[in-house]
Amino acid sequence: MRRWAGTLGVNVHPISHRPKVFMATVKQPPNPESNPRVQAVFDDIRATRRTDFINNFWRSLAFDPSLLEATWAEVKAVMATPSQLDPLTKEMIYVAVSIANACSYCVHSHTAAARAKGMTDGQHAELLAIASLAAKTNSLATGLQVPLDAAFDADAAS
Amino acid sequence: MRRWAGTLGVNVHPISHRPKVFMATVKQPPNPESNPRVQAVFDDIRATRRTDFINNFWRSLAFDPSLLEATWAEVKAVMATPSQLDPLTKEMIYVAVSIANACSYCVHSHTAAARAKGMTDGQHAELLAIASLAAKTNSLATGLQVPLDAAFDADAAS
Amino acid sequence: MRRWAGTLGVNVHPISHRPKVFMATVKQPPNPESNPRVQAVFDDIRATRRTDFINNFWRSLAFDPSLLEATWAEVKAVMATPSQLDPLTKEMIYVAVSIANACSYCVHSHTAAARAKGMTDGQHAELLAIASLAAKTNSLATGLQVPLDAAFDADAAS
Amino acid sequence: MRRWAGTLGVNVHPISHRPKVFMATVKQPPNPESNPRVQAVFDDIRATRRTDFINNFWRSLAFDPSLLEATWAEVKAVMATPSQLDPLTKEMIYVAVSIANACSYCVHSHTAAARAKGMTDGQHAELLAIASLAAKTNSLATGLQVPLDAAFDADAAS
Amino acid sequence: MRRWAGTLGVNVHPISHRPKVFMATVKQPPNPESNPRVQAVFDDIRATRRTDFINNFWRSLAFDPSLLEATWAEVKAVMATPSQLDPLTKEMIYVAVSIANACSYCVHSHTAAARAKGMTDGQHAELLAIASLAAKTNSLATGLQVPLDAAFDADAAS
Amino acid sequence: MRRWAGTLGVNVHPISHRPKVFMATVKQPPNPESNPRVQAVFDDIRATRRTDFINNFWRSLAFDPSLLEATWAEVKAVMATPSQLDPLTKEMIYVAVSIANACSYCVHSHTAAARAKGMTDGQHAELLAIASLAAKTNSLATGLQVPLDAAFDADAAS
Repeated sequence: MRRWAGTLGVNVHPISHRPKVFMATVKQPPNPESNPRVQAVFDDIRATRRTDFINNFWRSLAFDPSLLEATWAEVKAVMATPSQLDPLTKEMIYVAVSIANACSYCVHSHTAAARAKGMTDGQHAELLAIASLAAKTNSLATGLQVPLDAAFDADAAS
Repeated sequence: MRRWAGTLGVNVHPISHRPKVFMATVKQPPNPESNPRVQAVFDDIRATRRTDFINNFWRSLAFDPSLLEATWAEVKAVMATPSQLDPLTKEMIYVAVSIANACSYCVHSHTAAARAKGMTDGQHAELLAIASLAAKTNSLATGLQVPLDAAFDADAAS
Repeated sequence: MRRWAGTLGVNVHPISHRPKVFMATVKQPPNPESNPRVQAVFDDIRATRRTDFINNFWRSLAFDPSLLEATWAEVKAVMATPSQLDPLTKEMIYVAVSIANACSYCVHSHTAAARAKGMTDGQHAELLAIASLAAKTNSLATGLQVPLDAAFDADAAS
Repeated sequence: MRRWAGTLGVNVHPISHRPKVFMATVKQPPNPESNPRVQAVFDDIRATRRTDFINNFWRSLAFDPSLLEATWAEVKAVMATPSQLDPLTKEMIYVAVSIANACSYCVHSHTAAARAKGMTDGQHAELLAIASLAAKTNSLATGLQVPLDAAFDADAAS
Repeated sequence: MRRWAGTLGVNVHPISHRPKVFMATVKQPPNPESNPRVQAVFDDIRATRRTDFINNFWRSLAFDPSLLEATWAEVKAVMATPSQLDPLTKEMIYVAVSIANACSYCVHSHTAAARAKGMTDGQHAELLAIASLAAKTNSLATGLQVPLDAAFDADAAS
Repeated sequence: MRRWAGTLGVNVHPISHRPKVFMATVKQPPNPESNPRVQAVFDDIRATRRTDFINNFWRSLAFDPSLLEATWAEVKAVMATPSQLDPLTKEMIYVAVSIANACSYCVHSHTAAARAKGMTDGQHAELLAIASLAAKTNSLATGLQVPLDAAFDADAAS
């Protein structure tokens, strides 16, 4: 009854030695809001999201105020502006793409955002079921190299 | 006013020579429904989707009835069974993942399915805007190697 | 002799400050087996793998018993049922896909599973050599946009 | 001396039967420039690139003028505005990313753009060598799950 | 019984208009073997594979003899030299990676190569089942951000 | 003003409990240079890069001296040998591919290498802007399934 663990030859206990750190490729500015352009973006993030919390993505981007401004402007326009899709649907699409792109930070931050917008555990499970099923059938279609059906030609649609 | 095309050194006309084909890696069985297991799956696809149209994905999978049965059973359970997410939301998540995985066939077939479930041009444009923005910020987060915020720890949530 | 490290401008020592944690997007249920559906799956995992060890993938999936049941049923059918491919070959294919999909957890868990099924260091090195060579030639073929040879058309095969 | 082709069991000749088409998921508007917003973007593309040629990417995006405007504004700002990196270097980075993301259209269009900006055959070969080598060592690092060196911590840099 | 196709609003017939071509990003040299370095590589491919057939991947790479030589040398060393893994297992791993990387040409060429090395339809179906299941569980593990088990630490193994 | 964090229901403080470790899938040999083949490679890395620092990628690869030798030989030939592209351009292409492939270790190590070769903060920001824009337009082109322009056909170029 112990073959799998036994073959691994390890003790199955939590490990608490050798702590390591997450490291970024840029230094977060220690006082980012001393730069008025950064402050303006952070203030707009706080006002838009109605929270004082500025997550690390924006703190890291603050190393280049232009990139920070352009990125927030786009995220605000696409994700935080009323549109044809409701906010939770948009956030779930964001999570699904982040999973497919294997972006660990993005999966965490957008799953948290989806929860903040009302995603239940059941909806989360369903999102994971769809995203993983799509990854599976994507692999099957790519492995089979399925020829495209004429019915899918948008230009042929009347 | 012609530098870009000029440097390419080509005539910018539609090309109509050298036709090529899409090729699959498996032969589609010529009469797949002569196999009763395949026929049962195709019949269920027709009944579930209320159409006579069986797209090439299923026709290609028919080379292995077991794989066909298991795949359809899962797609039906996740995508064609009433659940907490509405059918269009589920289909749009499917499209987004297919884009991120660069599966050409899947992008076509699930975009068509989303249209069949009511997706408007405006919603399609919004889906593309979200999926491509997520791909962009996924790249930024990965390029920056943004450290994870403590706030995103599900186990810490009260 | 120190230009590379010198330009980095850092001390090259192990770091032991600022410990961080791995965080999941769902809470692992504290007593997952108090749910009889979870218990049944965990019992079948133990019996199938002949070990008491239930790895975190299944413990995390336990937040949704339906997703847990469906996922284990498929993994058991494909990976833990005698078939035409031997268990080690199947596990090495699993590792290769996990590498290509940049799934850190999956690379770890399936490399451990492959070792448990007898993969030697030499076979592991060979697996890495093939997977990384394939990634390289995949890039070359995509960068060159190599036209498909008629010889690869499955439908043309006699 | 014919084992490989022989086993394939096919005649190795160009194929000219069964022509198929490339299909988009949206209809290109037949007269896109009848929309003044589209016309303005197309005019700016022509002026910026000094060519009359508008490639299909922009013609397809014209189905949604807002998405077209936002996308061109960003491409122009990042790629067609003098900056710290020279235009050819920027275009080669673009090609490399497009290869890694398996975007066939993008590989074609940005390889053509890089050529228009002076990329020689030798530089193209070198770009392919770097992109494919990176894909290979990316796979090795992911397969090995190499632990991060303390020396790569940007915050530790003095 | 026609809702799905009906909503698509298209006629579901084979399409035979507007033929298009596959295009490469480099010109295949018309007489590649007039270059003695190319000829030497092609001769070695023919001798190694015991066939006269040189597929387009090598013909396209011939635009840069150095890249051609280096690539063939590596493919020959890893794939066409007796080693600890049998040739079919190696080829199936190659196909699986090519699927995960969404390289259409590579899926075709290596599936054909696997068939040439004896892969049956049943083994092919099993390969697709494993590769697509791995893609699915990769997505689940990434979506859940499953914390790594201590048992998977290679350095802890005794 | 606290809705977002409030909905998360967590305290937004640095976490310092439950330290975890980075784990590799292979054991780093404790005295890798006791193997003369490993020593020769490490010596060449030191001489080529003019530093005593051997990063973990090479230390992990040392578990298989053949794979170590072949990998270093290729990296040295492509990246550390004078060629038509300057060393910084080559390193930035490498970083961009590593981002697209979601290889955390590679993003760190090659960003550090690019810095060591002179990349400024401004150039780094520009690299991130290009790589993330490419990821975005790659998604758009894939989502739209843009048909290929005849102008991009290399074989048609005169």
